[in-house]
Amino acid sequence: MMYDKEQLSARIEAYMQALPFPQEPDTLYEPIVYSLERGGKRLRPLLAAMACNVFRDTIDEVLPCAAAVEVFHNFTLLHDDIMDNAAVRRGKPSVQRKWGVNSAILSGDAMLIYAYRLLEQADTALLPQILRIFNDISLKVCEGQQYDMDFESLEHVPMESYLRMIELKTAVLLAGATAIGAVVGGASVEDRRRLYAFAIQLGMAFQIRDDILDSYGTEETLGKKIGGDILEGKKTFLTTAAMETADEDTRHKLAGLMHNKAMIPDDKIARVLAIYDRLGIRERAEQAVADYTAAALEALDGVSAPEERKAQLRSLAAALNRRMH
Amino acid sequence: MMYDKEQLSARIEAYMQALPFPQEPDTLYEPIVYSLERGGKRLRPLLAAMACNVFRDTIDEVLPCAAAVEVFHNFTLLHDDIMDNAAVRRGKPSVQRKWGVNSAILSGDAMLIYAYRLLEQADTALLPQILRIFNDISLKVCEGQQYDMDFESLEHVPMESYLRMIELKTAVLLAGATAIGAVVGGASVEDRRRLYAFAIQLGMAFQIRDDILDSYGTEETLGKKIGGDILEGKKTFLTTAAMETADEDTRHKLAGLMHNKAMIPDDKIARVLAIYDRLGIRERAEQAVADYTAAALEALDGVSAPEERKAQLRSLAAALNRRMH
Repeated sequence: MMYDKEQLSARIEAYMQALPFPQEPDTLYEPIVYSLERGGKRLRPLLAAMACNVFRDTIDEVLPCAAAVEVFHNFTLLHDDIMDNAAVRRGKPSVQRKWGVNSAILSGDAMLIYAYRLLEQADTALLPQILRIFNDISLKVCEGQQYDMDFESLEHVPMESYLRMIELKTAVLLAGATAIGAVVGGASVEDRRRLYAFAIQLGMAFQIRDDILDSYGTEETLGKKIGGDILEGKKTFLTTAAMETADEDTRHKLAGLMHNKAMIPDDKIARVLAIYDRLGIRERAEQAVADYTAAALEALDGVSAPEERKAQLRSLAAALNRRMH
Repeated sequence: MMYDKEQLSARIEAYMQALPFPQEPDTLYEPIVYSLERGGKRLRPLLAAMACNVFRDTIDEVLPCAAAVEVFHNFTLLHDDIMDNAAVRRGKPSVQRKWGVNSAILSGDAMLIYAYRLLEQADTALLPQILRIFNDISLKVCEGQQYDMDFESLEHVPMESYLRMIELKTAVLLAGATAIGAVVGGASVEDRRRLYAFAIQLGMAFQIRDDILDSYGTEETLGKKIGGDILEGKKTFLTTAAMETADEDTRHKLAGLMHNKAMIPDDKIARVLAIYDRLGIRERAEQAVADYTAAALEALDGVSAPEERKAQLRSLAAALNRRMH
């Protein structure tokens, strides 16, 4: 049968909440359970389950792999929060703020291993292929995070490098989840590749939408203050496009603003947004999201399955495109 | 054919030095290459290769798995050095001292994933079993590290808890390396279990020998100052045995000494050693090493292979027992 998004989400959530963790040492496992309890979109396991369901009527077989990707994703958030010295994650204290840095490092390590433990439940005939995809994307996510850190000390990053970075840091994990789902579903190599390509494009759109929302969303729907990226001087699609589009004078002004830590926050945000507006950056970002989404759907068209079996992935792409948070 | 220790070490070292790492981002991979270059005993891959060689004439098939365990081991050292704020590792600056904490966290994560990548090269028929052992020991090592950190804030740890901690933190990885080697070699389930038991006992002896050397070795052979554990107030077999053996008065005195940060280092070491001497702690530790080594060799006796095929493991156990560093 075909499952809709709500049914899949419910199955995934139930599976995630029932993951068996050892009781002892509680100092190791409590932060892991805490990290995984805090919800989030569960986008990656959802993609895995939907991709599986394109080719297969049952989704039980994909749940351990889907959960593995989600556990891996939450491991990256846990370690990223240490590197960014982040105090809050999804409205709650970050693990490192609650339990300390050492605990956050070690619990993160254990989460990463636990993700691999979930892969043990995959069909043994498929395991080599699944392990290869999982390793490949996991290492790429680390590479993306490293580029992101390396970029912090650069004044300007070429758009090509920025796009490569978000592909590694964000898109590849969505793509890997989707590809693993396809493998479990029994997809051909070609269809698995098309779905991987679909999710890469979707992931690019997803990250650029994130960048747009951080500057142009509303606090109510986003659940956090607007302009955080600007205040942190973070490289985003918006800053990268602006630096590329601006004349030398504006570029200089923008770089100065991004580095200025003394300015009143609301002032800083307003001035940066004024530059974006003058340069038409928001429109360019919206266009990029639309282009990537279109490319994603085109890749999906190529997947050799009846249209109705691809409907859930198609509507997920549309929902991500118009999301407000 | 049977390989001797030097031949196996040479093969392992050549394999480790030829591991293919991506070039970019160099900020991610340089610390990894640096960590793996720094040598060490390569004890874990050696055990894997020897265990394989008990049952099989070729050892090529075990090298990726042996390297995976060694990469994992070096990943744990890298992250442990962050948690301990260690400046030096094997006579060279630690990764976190050389590249910073964030780099050390992320490069460690990538190393852990890279270890799993090496497992991809295992025979697909054996992969599920190898992955299961690898996951099991990896998670246990994290648990052992967590107990070790938890123990820091306790005045006294029961001997049973201390032994369980070093089993998880140290012995289990030696045992896993040995068991994986046996699996690759084609051992029966029973022989794999016996070799696992052999290496657990060997690992216990190995860690207690480490504890003895830190207090009773010589700076020349050990390559570092004697008494480091005492100065750091670290829980070891010696402190644990002393706290257990001492009367209340001595126990109080020892606890006070361990916490005293103001005392002249050589004084502190001398006074703690004087208590150990009075209580016969060194002898008790030597007895424990001898007992664990005997238990290891007994487990090895049970392995159903000709005596000459087990000779290398037997002589490795003897060499570890009498090692000076």
